[in-house]
Amino acid sequence: MLDLTQGTPSPVEPTVDFEADGVQHGFLRLPYSRDDSAWGSVMIPLTVVKNGEGPTALLTGGNHGDEYEGPIALFDLARRLIAEEVSGRVIIVPAMNYPAFRAGTRTSPIDKGNLNRSFPGRPYGQPTEKIADYFQRTLLPLADIVLDYHSGGRTLDFLPFAAAHILPDKRQEAACFAAVSAFGAPWSMKMLEIDSVGMFDSAAEEMGKTFVTTELGGGGTATARTAGIAKRGVANLLRHAGILAGAVDVQETRWLDMPSSDCFTFSQHDGLIEPLVDLGDRVRQGDVLARIHSVERTGTAPTEFRAKLDGILAARHFPGLVKSGDCLAVVATEVP
Amino acid sequence: MLDLTQGTPSPVEPTVDFEADGVQHGFLRLPYSRDDSAWGSVMIPLTVVKNGEGPTALLTGGNHGDEYEGPIALFDLARRLIAEEVSGRVIIVPAMNYPAFRAGTRTSPIDKGNLNRSFPGRPYGQPTEKIADYFQRTLLPLADIVLDYHSGGRTLDFLPFAAAHILPDKRQEAACFAAVSAFGAPWSMKMLEIDSVGMFDSAAEEMGKTFVTTELGGGGTATARTAGIAKRGVANLLRHAGILAGAVDVQETRWLDMPSSDCFTFSQHDGLIEPLVDLGDRVRQGDVLARIHSVERTGTAPTEFRAKLDGILAARHFPGLVKSGDCLAVVATEVP
Amino acid sequence: MLDLTQGTPSPVEPTVDFEADGVQHGFLRLPYSRDDSAWGSVMIPLTVVKNGEGPTALLTGGNHGDEYEGPIALFDLARRLIAEEVSGRVIIVPAMNYPAFRAGTRTSPIDKGNLNRSFPGRPYGQPTEKIADYFQRTLLPLADIVLDYHSGGRTLDFLPFAAAHILPDKRQEAACFAAVSAFGAPWSMKMLEIDSVGMFDSAAEEMGKTFVTTELGGGGTATARTAGIAKRGVANLLRHAGILAGAVDVQETRWLDMPSSDCFTFSQHDGLIEPLVDLGDRVRQGDVLARIHSVERTGTAPTEFRAKLDGILAARHFPGLVKSGDCLAVVATEVP
Amino acid sequence: MLDLTQGTPSPVEPTVDFEADGVQHGFLRLPYSRDDSAWGSVMIPLTVVKNGEGPTALLTGGNHGDEYEGPIALFDLARRLIAEEVSGRVIIVPAMNYPAFRAGTRTSPIDKGNLNRSFPGRPYGQPTEKIADYFQRTLLPLADIVLDYHSGGRTLDFLPFAAAHILPDKRQEAACFAAVSAFGAPWSMKMLEIDSVGMFDSAAEEMGKTFVTTELGGGGTATARTAGIAKRGVANLLRHAGILAGAVDVQETRWLDMPSSDCFTFSQHDGLIEPLVDLGDRVRQGDVLARIHSVERTGTAPTEFRAKLDGILAARHFPGLVKSGDCLAVVATEVP
Amino acid sequence: MLDLTQGTPSPVEPTVDFEADGVQHGFLRLPYSRDDSAWGSVMIPLTVVKNGEGPTALLTGGNHGDEYEGPIALFDLARRLIAEEVSGRVIIVPAMNYPAFRAGTRTSPIDKGNLNRSFPGRPYGQPTEKIADYFQRTLLPLADIVLDYHSGGRTLDFLPFAAAHILPDKRQEAACFAAVSAFGAPWSMKMLEIDSVGMFDSAAEEMGKTFVTTELGGGGTATARTAGIAKRGVANLLRHAGILAGAVDVQETRWLDMPSSDCFTFSQHDGLIEPLVDLGDRVRQGDVLARIHSVERTGTAPTEFRAKLDGILAARHFPGLVKSGDCLAVVATEVP
Amino acid sequence: MLDLTQGTPSPVEPTVDFEADGVQHGFLRLPYSRDDSAWGSVMIPLTVVKNGEGPTALLTGGNHGDEYEGPIALFDLARRLIAEEVSGRVIIVPAMNYPAFRAGTRTSPIDKGNLNRSFPGRPYGQPTEKIADYFQRTLLPLADIVLDYHSGGRTLDFLPFAAAHILPDKRQEAACFAAVSAFGAPWSMKMLEIDSVGMFDSAAEEMGKTFVTTELGGGGTATARTAGIAKRGVANLLRHAGILAGAVDVQETRWLDMPSSDCFTFSQHDGLIEPLVDLGDRVRQGDVLARIHSVERTGTAPTEFRAKLDGILAARHFPGLVKSGDCLAVVATEVP
Repeated sequence: MLDLTQGTPSPVEPTVDFEADGVQHGFLRLPYSRDDSAWGSVMIPLTVVKNGEGPTALLTGGNHGDEYEGPIALFDLARRLIAEEVSGRVIIVPAMNYPAFRAGTRTSPIDKGNLNRSFPGRPYGQPTEKIADYFQRTLLPLADIVLDYHSGGRTLDFLPFAAAHILPDKRQEAACFAAVSAFGAPWSMKMLEIDSVGMFDSAAEEMGKTFVTTELGGGGTATARTAGIAKRGVANLLRHAGILAGAVDVQETRWLDMPSSDCFTFSQHDGLIEPLVDLGDRVRQGDVLARIHSVERTGTAPTEFRAKLDGILAARHFPGLVKSGDCLAVVATEVP
Repeated sequence: MLDLTQGTPSPVEPTVDFEADGVQHGFLRLPYSRDDSAWGSVMIPLTVVKNGEGPTALLTGGNHGDEYEGPIALFDLARRLIAEEVSGRVIIVPAMNYPAFRAGTRTSPIDKGNLNRSFPGRPYGQPTEKIADYFQRTLLPLADIVLDYHSGGRTLDFLPFAAAHILPDKRQEAACFAAVSAFGAPWSMKMLEIDSVGMFDSAAEEMGKTFVTTELGGGGTATARTAGIAKRGVANLLRHAGILAGAVDVQETRWLDMPSSDCFTFSQHDGLIEPLVDLGDRVRQGDVLARIHSVERTGTAPTEFRAKLDGILAARHFPGLVKSGDCLAVVATEVP
Repeated sequence: MLDLTQGTPSPVEPTVDFEADGVQHGFLRLPYSRDDSAWGSVMIPLTVVKNGEGPTALLTGGNHGDEYEGPIALFDLARRLIAEEVSGRVIIVPAMNYPAFRAGTRTSPIDKGNLNRSFPGRPYGQPTEKIADYFQRTLLPLADIVLDYHSGGRTLDFLPFAAAHILPDKRQEAACFAAVSAFGAPWSMKMLEIDSVGMFDSAAEEMGKTFVTTELGGGGTATARTAGIAKRGVANLLRHAGILAGAVDVQETRWLDMPSSDCFTFSQHDGLIEPLVDLGDRVRQGDVLARIHSVERTGTAPTEFRAKLDGILAARHFPGLVKSGDCLAVVATEVP
Repeated sequence: MLDLTQGTPSPVEPTVDFEADGVQHGFLRLPYSRDDSAWGSVMIPLTVVKNGEGPTALLTGGNHGDEYEGPIALFDLARRLIAEEVSGRVIIVPAMNYPAFRAGTRTSPIDKGNLNRSFPGRPYGQPTEKIADYFQRTLLPLADIVLDYHSGGRTLDFLPFAAAHILPDKRQEAACFAAVSAFGAPWSMKMLEIDSVGMFDSAAEEMGKTFVTTELGGGGTATARTAGIAKRGVANLLRHAGILAGAVDVQETRWLDMPSSDCFTFSQHDGLIEPLVDLGDRVRQGDVLARIHSVERTGTAPTEFRAKLDGILAARHFPGLVKSGDCLAVVATEVP
Repeated sequence: MLDLTQGTPSPVEPTVDFEADGVQHGFLRLPYSRDDSAWGSVMIPLTVVKNGEGPTALLTGGNHGDEYEGPIALFDLARRLIAEEVSGRVIIVPAMNYPAFRAGTRTSPIDKGNLNRSFPGRPYGQPTEKIADYFQRTLLPLADIVLDYHSGGRTLDFLPFAAAHILPDKRQEAACFAAVSAFGAPWSMKMLEIDSVGMFDSAAEEMGKTFVTTELGGGGTATARTAGIAKRGVANLLRHAGILAGAVDVQETRWLDMPSSDCFTFSQHDGLIEPLVDLGDRVRQGDVLARIHSVERTGTAPTEFRAKLDGILAARHFPGLVKSGDCLAVVATEVP
Repeated sequence: MLDLTQGTPSPVEPTVDFEADGVQHGFLRLPYSRDDSAWGSVMIPLTVVKNGEGPTALLTGGNHGDEYEGPIALFDLARRLIAEEVSGRVIIVPAMNYPAFRAGTRTSPIDKGNLNRSFPGRPYGQPTEKIADYFQRTLLPLADIVLDYHSGGRTLDFLPFAAAHILPDKRQEAACFAAVSAFGAPWSMKMLEIDSVGMFDSAAEEMGKTFVTTELGGGGTATARTAGIAKRGVANLLRHAGILAGAVDVQETRWLDMPSSDCFTFSQHDGLIEPLVDLGDRVRQGDVLARIHSVERTGTAPTEFRAKLDGILAARHFPGLVKSGDCLAVVATEVP
């Protein structure tokens, strides 16, 4: 695709100096003129902690606005981290797509933008595209290692795992999987994307960064358990990168793989889901994962959806009602 | 309050005959004239299974439209139940506030009516009031035992329990708690309501019915585990009532109590919740249940909310964001 | 029902004097304080034409806001009528539920009020209730004969007919049917209401007025033909009442009857309607009136709906999609 | 009207003790169950400052949610007032209709309730009715003097004045006008209401309270000047009542009267307003106050609206566009 | 315009094999990530019937979502067609812009996309653009003959006709008009488009396909008569193409032409339409087609709109209210 | 950026002839197909007055739809201007972004387009882009001098001033400032834009036109005073340009400058604004301009925002509530 953005400056203005030592709490100010504020802005909170030389970690949550483990871990870290603990630099953006995060929705209420499908973004256009462009052209180039927290959001639920992708550069891939291991989630995943165009992941990976993502739960909530995984994981990652001192708090993790699109089951019916398997349960090919009952009348037979391979139920549709076309379930295979 | 409804007939028309033996799948047709259908109706599915003499059970789900264990168990039961198994009558309404159920919302999208705050209802007025009136004046009088399924819906999450209320008539109360035991959920609750005006529960209890309610999970989803509890529970209840043959499938249950309003913790802040305790965890008075982080900026201290008594975390606010005034947590005490 | 409105004055203020001779074009001003106008009002246009002694006709359209033959005939009449032609008084309100008429919707966009289910209304409360109350307590008492135009609106379509109801007072009933004959629509109906609570019709009939209603088409449009029927009909009615001079322009009309609720066919399915009979077609009991195709997938059999008696298709659901509970068709019987 | 609320307790729970000495900042917690919070509440901030014996002042802003001088003066006063300065009690509710205030709208976004048309309210029903009921039955009875701040809101603009009403009890009326004088706004008004049913004013006056209201500007904003008038006025009022020590800071004020409904000019056209007179300007009967231009096309003549009496322009429609039925202007007469 | 889509694969996945013999009912699955389904899809139903060698017909309805003759004929055909009757291949998509069809609206509720202004589409971007792209790059290339059903939708009404365009390639044009004749609607049109950019028609014609479109009624409904025309027409077209065996069921048709933009009359006023001519009526230049009454007040003269040429009223604005800028009427000329 | 629009004709059709002498009132008709009008259009009113040879003035208001001084002055001028007074041509478009003007909003309700960020526009795409393109390619090239009225709209308020920009072509700049002087507003500004991409100003200036803009008040209203400034200003400008005869009505004006981004103060908090300075007040660096009170609770300290330089308060946030990121105040420096 043609790059039409060369040379157009980003409208985003940070209120912090990325090169200054110490702790700075501030904002990325994105001008946003609209009916209810002619000269208004979106104010994306961020914290920069820098101390001398060393690698830079870019830590992000709220890429989707209804996923909470990342924001919890990062608002917490931003308040607690002190410059003296750090060797290098930590850039913390707990809520990347800030309008979505404030609304508690996957996409931005301003422009319906799914930030994780908006990369590389554009410096003009809709606010979500401007946020993507600022990460693409300003923040990602500053980083050596990137951690982007995800969960299932309001409509999916996941086993808690950290993940990386299979990459063409095997050295980079190894660095990514090493970082996943250090993070120390209960599960670790070799991730297959169903639609990777425009992802932050790809943007970071194409620049050669060490990139770790997660899926730590879902449903539009967080639990004490999943928030704890997120908090321990980021500390481990910073230790692994040499930015925080001390040894990684090593955790046992079980590795999973998504070998093909047979992992995914999509519904071809609207209705009420009756799940027959829970997250973490083992399933065998042909097992009924869920039944979908018609909601228009009583007395009709439900439709059954079955596993296409052996494995572990790693993700599931969350709301009680389902629409034709929704992803019902993801079965991942165990790595021996 | 004055009763202005005496003698006004309900506009609801059933397509089934409650006095006929056999299995009937049909509708409660509630006329609803509106912009997109001048002569339209709400069609509430129901099933009636009758066989000879015997008690009548009224089984309801979807009183709130975003609670799914009840509808799953009841759409399933309505399809499977055959007249020969029954002694007496079973009236199954899997989705009482049907417009809310179709929308996946607590209240009706038509009139914002919370059905469980609308009793005794009115035969004129809004659709939700008309549904309440039909249960109040037609269906409840037919019943001996009533099971109304609830869960936390999209904004609350509960330990799975069946429950009954402390009642002035101790014989009735004992019958209710016996039915709760028979249901056999993992937990059983002596329930305290924070706002009982207009509840279906009160309407049934005031008529002297044996009434069982539940809270079987929440978040706007159901799991294989909670759906299983709901399905086993209704079968047990019908056996306990002598409507289905066979012995109750006895389950171990742990009893909880809600002795005072100190069980409830309400937030006085907007923000991002960091839960520190999960459902089922034991807490002691003074323990921090959750912290609320400001979402406007990084670097500020979260606000802590603490348990006001010793007990078990029995319910919690579900979404990741909280508003001032929301119920954060319910701590119930264990009955020795 | 208790009458709580005794003695509370209506907030509606007319800008005309109902007792003055001549032609007056003005408004019923109904104060309506709201977010976008703290001291705003709804301004309902009306025309009063009076000349000496004689009966009063009250002519109304726009009782439902998406029915157009009445407003066309009445805006036209209001502009053309001169005092000298009149003996008595003509009160013309082309758009009773004016907010609904401006929005082109059956009910009021302000309060979702269906004016024809809101009688006798209330002087406080919602704007639609205040309009009903003003007709109930001020305009209806002024009238001897009342013509209230209806059509099918956006969701129903009718054969063009004028109609009156079977009434307990047979002298009043005869006067109503005589006026229907004078109106001279192609069809004339002995009307059965499916839900008559709160209707303007009943309010007028209970006061002993000669009351004529119509259904002149539908779909949210008017044609040259149906507008012509409406314009000729009102002139005929005023001549019949002796308010306009000259003889009634007599038209041939075919009488229909609605003998029972078997006239009505309600859908029990959502889907795409394939009509097999058109308005005015003769049908025999058991004929398929329409088929409903599932819209979720191809390859499934449609559901058929059949006539429950012999007759003429007098009304039908208009939009191409149908919801369970919608009225699909009305079959009326021919009066020999 | 029948009082159906006898004996039903208010659902509102204060977090403060109205009888305790000292400064308390807290909330009125109003349970509000809804789709996005099953067990949520509206939290209305309030401050109570009490010191020994003495009269009680009830100070309220945000009765309409888009009027800002009152909230500014009262949030400011609530933070600054210390118990030692007070003799008696000051109850400060800066934003009565709190949901409306948070939305910046006249009426509540929850139920479209106009709080100042909702008295005496009801303990059940919609949230706005519950707020009215709590003031009616709990807070007003505690008060000796009541100051309720208003401005024009987003759709009206006023000369800055304090006001009281003509009352049947002339001693009470004199006390009210004395308090208006003490408030010391640039203008003082003998107020005529166009629609007084359900007002807080009437509720307080009927209980015999000394009641002062204001209109201090409008347009949905406040200026340094009007906020200053509000802050000085409340201090003066508390001194006048003997609750704060010290002499009233006496201000020159010009008295106005609204002798009849001829003060009000309502538009009978939609369009673009061209004002020809500004607030405070003297006008003579017959002067053109404003012209309304058609917005559909150029080249048409505007409609003119003229003063019906001599006086001062005291209020005007604020937005640049006007609807038929809106109040265009209020001309008040000068009291010599 | 630059083609930026070269080489980007479509995200649409068919669940059928276009090359397999037999009848297949399935879906085009279009991934659509959104707030209410993170991994959701739009499921567009389609049927493919193939039998050996022979031409391919692409049959489409629901290009605009509120036009029903096409979907009725095609859901019906999809269920009835058997492979043995076919020589070649029939691809049936009864509801191209499926989200619009489900909503009953012209454009997609997702992205407001008008599919018939979205060609050639894009493989990324909005769902409507992705649908257009899939037809442009995958389905159109498979076809020899294309039938795309239209009607007037909710806001226009047409005489029932099939149509083709004047084309630069006279052989192609002749093939198109021959197919129109075979279709056998009561009227046949040489169509002039008022805005042809982005149309499916142009996309098909530019690829050299034989392309037939229709306008078979309107108003957002279908009648038994118009549905019958649609069903007979498609069978005739398939026989004409040699895909179905048997002779075309020849119908009398009257040919119309749209010689210039004088065919179209646009309103320059808002108001209530009084039509003076009905569809199919003959008009002469200067005849009043419709009058527009002001809806703000009674007593004003309506505005008249007159025919600019002699002909037949072929289309008209459907809703009873009109906005300035709407097309009021289309007068077509009769081909001798 | 690539120009992809070369050669694509605009879909906008004027109903006037720009080359004809005399007064023409008409429309720019912009086809806009949508759910509620399949063949609808946006009808933008305009007036062209031409008399012989001479320069062309393009006069525009309603670039933002909630700014009223321009539309008032231009609807008034369009009705009054007669051809004989003119030497050359005057093109008057009182409401450029007509859908926004009708809605009373800054941006278009159709597409959320901010017209003054949409230049140079596109002939396809959204309606706002099509309007921009028509001005860019058709109307601007016709003009010698351009006056585009602005005010603060609903969310900002300004001192009344006319303004021009510092330009690279000093001859053009001098012509612009001379025209600003002739306009004769109470204040005149050397304007700094915070975000000039896509502005009509830049489009006109880049074509070498003499361009004058204004900010004449705000808040979504106009006063008699500000409307008077607008009306006198346009007459002066036309005299200055030699299009109207007679001498400029010279007014005293005070010049202001915006030397840097320190003029602007942006809020970093949500809350209730207490302004401490009014428009036109002198401030010194460090003065508190406004305080922001928390609206969640009483008893907390407000946040203060201070002037960053000495000057005059030239603009301020208008609504009583403010969001983090909104522009609170603009301080301009006085030109000696």
